Amino acid sequence: MKYEKNTLSQALFNQYDDKKLVAADKAHYMHCFHIFDDHRENGALNIAAGNGAYIYDTHGRRYLDAVGGMWCTNIGLGREEMADAIAEQVRLLAYSNPFCDMANDKAIELSAKLAELAPGDLNHVFLTTGGSTAVDTAYRLVQFYQGCRGKPEKKQVISRKNAYHGSTFLTMSLGGKAADRSPEFDYLQDGIHHLSCPNPYRAPQGMDEAAFLDYLVKEFEDKILEIGADKVAAFFAEPISASGGVIIPPKGYHKRMWEVCQKYDLLYISDEVVTSFGRLGAFFASKEVFDVQPDIITTAKGLTSGYLPLGACIFSERIWDVIAEPGKGRCFAHGFTYSGHPVSAVCALKNIEILQRENLLEHAKQVGGYLEQQLATLKDLPLVGDVRCKKLMACVEFVKDKQSKELFPAEINIGEKIHSKAQERGLLVRPIIHLNVMSPPLTITYQQVDEIVETLREVIVQTAAELKQSGDFGG
Amino acid sequence: MKYEKNTLSQALFNQYDDKKLVAADKAHYMHCFHIFDDHRENGALNIAAGNGAYIYDTHGRRYLDAVGGMWCTNIGLGREEMADAIAEQVRLLAYSNPFCDMANDKAIELSAKLAELAPGDLNHVFLTTGGSTAVDTAYRLVQFYQGCRGKPEKKQVISRKNAYHGSTFLTMSLGGKAADRSPEFDYLQDGIHHLSCPNPYRAPQGMDEAAFLDYLVKEFEDKILEIGADKVAAFFAEPISASGGVIIPPKGYHKRMWEVCQKYDLLYISDEVVTSFGRLGAFFASKEVFDVQPDIITTAKGLTSGYLPLGACIFSERIWDVIAEPGKGRCFAHGFTYSGHPVSAVCALKNIEILQRENLLEHAKQVGGYLEQQLATLKDLPLVGDVRCKKLMACVEFVKDKQSKELFPAEINIGEKIHSKAQERGLLVRPIIHLNVMSPPLTITYQQVDEIVETLREVIVQTAAELKQSGDFGG
Repeated sequence: MKYEKNTLSQALFNQYDDKKLVAADKAHYMHCFHIFDDHRENGALNIAAGNGAYIYDTHGRRYLDAVGGMWCTNIGLGREEMADAIAEQVRLLAYSNPFCDMANDKAIELSAKLAELAPGDLNHVFLTTGGSTAVDTAYRLVQFYQGCRGKPEKKQVISRKNAYHGSTFLTMSLGGKAADRSPEFDYLQDGIHHLSCPNPYRAPQGMDEAAFLDYLVKEFEDKILEIGADKVAAFFAEPISASGGVIIPPKGYHKRMWEVCQKYDLLYISDEVVTSFGRLGAFFASKEVFDVQPDIITTAKGLTSGYLPLGACIFSERIWDVIAEPGKGRCFAHGFTYSGHPVSAVCALKNIEILQRENLLEHAKQVGGYLEQQLATLKDLPLVGDVRCKKLMACVEFVKDKQSKELFPAEINIGEKIHSKAQERGLLVRPIIHLNVMSPPLTITYQQVDEIVETLREVIVQTAAELKQSGDFGG
Repeated sequence: MKYEKNTLSQALFNQYDDKKLVAADKAHYMHCFHIFDDHRENGALNIAAGNGAYIYDTHGRRYLDAVGGMWCTNIGLGREEMADAIAEQVRLLAYSNPFCDMANDKAIELSAKLAELAPGDLNHVFLTTGGSTAVDTAYRLVQFYQGCRGKPEKKQVISRKNAYHGSTFLTMSLGGKAADRSPEFDYLQDGIHHLSCPNPYRAPQGMDEAAFLDYLVKEFEDKILEIGADKVAAFFAEPISASGGVIIPPKGYHKRMWEVCQKYDLLYISDEVVTSFGRLGAFFASKEVFDVQPDIITTAKGLTSGYLPLGACIFSERIWDVIAEPGKGRCFAHGFTYSGHPVSAVCALKNIEILQRENLLEHAKQVGGYLEQQLATLKDLPLVGDVRCKKLMACVEFVKDKQSKELFPAEINIGEKIHSKAQERGLLVRPIIHLNVMSPPLTITYQQVDEIVETLREVIVQTAAELKQSGDFGG
């Protein structure tokens, strides 16, 4: 692949004053996970347009966005009918107060639809503005539930290393990615515990997958007993940790962890911000893919395919029956101005309609299976330690030594090297230190999968040669 | 005022299956600050359409929304050009990854515009999904700043009672509204302190406004010295506490508190989620209305007039110079999938354009002054303890006894009584226990102000008579 001129009008791109844009970016716009030195020196890739799986920078250069925005552009960008549905709702009712005794028909309709799609008795929906606020809400709901049950001591929670649950103070504390834990920040320490990351590739030496699974389950049970089951409220887990490196746990892991939750009266919170709305071929992966019935599911991203900000916390009748007990005079003192936003709700409803009408979940299963197969062919290349792929969540892990699985030193910045070489070829794969992750739109074609894998192969081979040349890699 | 049939087509409202909607609402949709018993019994007011300052329920009944959605519909609902701008951006680029080295032109343009509008050297912008995430970001930025300065011990923060700063676990802990502190929830206790609410109406007995101001400033300074100035990072304050009851502090309060911050090296965070974008007649009220130069301003709501979810945390060169120090290899490990969302950014840019083109800030000053005058005429009525109004933020506080300022018992639910009677007359004013608050769109007319005040007068007189009749009010 090479840069291709856009299929959009070049006139669009002629309007950009790139010098001015770059200056304004550096002077005023702090990005997410802003890397100060790098941004000062190199600026950013400024995106101006997007269509399907392709995005275009302000120069009109086209990229196949294998990252899918940020694990989110599930139906692909630039849908006319989405623009129309959103505009129509803006004209009809652009905002509606979601507090106390106020509601709007679109928020209600979406809540009913999510209850219908979610597994089992997950019938109650609290709408938020994205993944972070969905998980923050789930945490507060867990506390409220235990409080309402008369168990004010049962409020500690268990998460995992390498998990990502969001970026509020609370959800960042709940997450367990070492790279996100900078010493300049503080984190909530009290009442949050982190178990091992269930990554088979990094299992303790000599442990096969079955032994590793037993080890993980025992660690969980031991942790509960150490804290005291009467003090532990809940277990938070992504079905597949996404930005933690597409961690696909040992087969049966979630079911076993769920059984431990049942044994000790813990709520099981499935953070499906990434895995829901088709990325694994199902609306929700918890039950359909991993055979567990969570007490709470959090979702966002694919919920609107990124077209507008929206998140949701979906919870069970069991929780509802406790918190909503008649005659208690309770109020769930929690909520956001943009909870139940009618325009975001319409966007999600249209998104679901498109996913269903175009049978995109089935397509994601099929083409995701093909991506699994094709990416696996990279395993034999130099530098490639592991390839992890489940349907449309994928990751390549690079190592200095395939035998020992030793990583390159941080300054080699291997993920970034792969990423920038791919970008030169018109492909975007997201670097996370020694990983490159992918989550293309569900609309991706077999041919585009081939393009991704071929480009990666080319780039990996070239990078390996360069690292050999510089003496950083033995081969 | 009476229910008026909508000016929209009745066909629109005929489509609603109200029975089905009410059932779905009760079965699936948990509202913000959901009041379980009340919602089970009475359901909700389901809004279907909105235009200007008017909203319409699913039966086609029209209400003058003096609440302005939720302190947010500043330019009024149903703007055609807003629908067009949003739809155009959805077609062009519906989502763009805002992480690390990725950006989009609309997020950059908005950041530059906010830096231009914000006072002094507040030149750096972090975009979020609403007020809660903006304040949560500000808190994490404060910690990061102190950490980067080599002051890891200087991380405690001071807020005020009756403040509202959002609904994440952190921002709810930062807030200080007693009504939001339900015993079922937990709150972050460590490192958050709450000063007195600067409400002149509830000043300690015998204290005039000047004495009260001295008292508040001394309390602040004493609290810093008690904790240790080397341990206190920042002071968080709304210029006017909004949902805390439109608390207009004694004249000079913010300047004096700001001076204490300078003396002890505290950052001053001005939470302008409500007060910015014209509600007090200025884009930002901190400097223009209250003559303080904050280190951080948080904003949301009026930023998009509620049309789409968006928030921002705007901060100073002083903070930037510390955190972005070259050669430190730092990353601000914080961010949301929907930070810098291109569609939300376009919405904010169009909103600012409309505010400027229609000179709505000047109108808000003028008509807000008229609202101040007219609402003040209610002070002589029975039940009315205090009327607080600053431009387009207003509140009526009801008391059982004007002399002692004693409140009605909670079960009288006086705010709700006023609210429901006003609603019957086609006017929405938001009840908060013993208060009714208002924040109409900036486009409100003098005639609509008259309607609001006349309706309130009618409703207050009638409520007083009924409470006399039932023996709950002496008169």
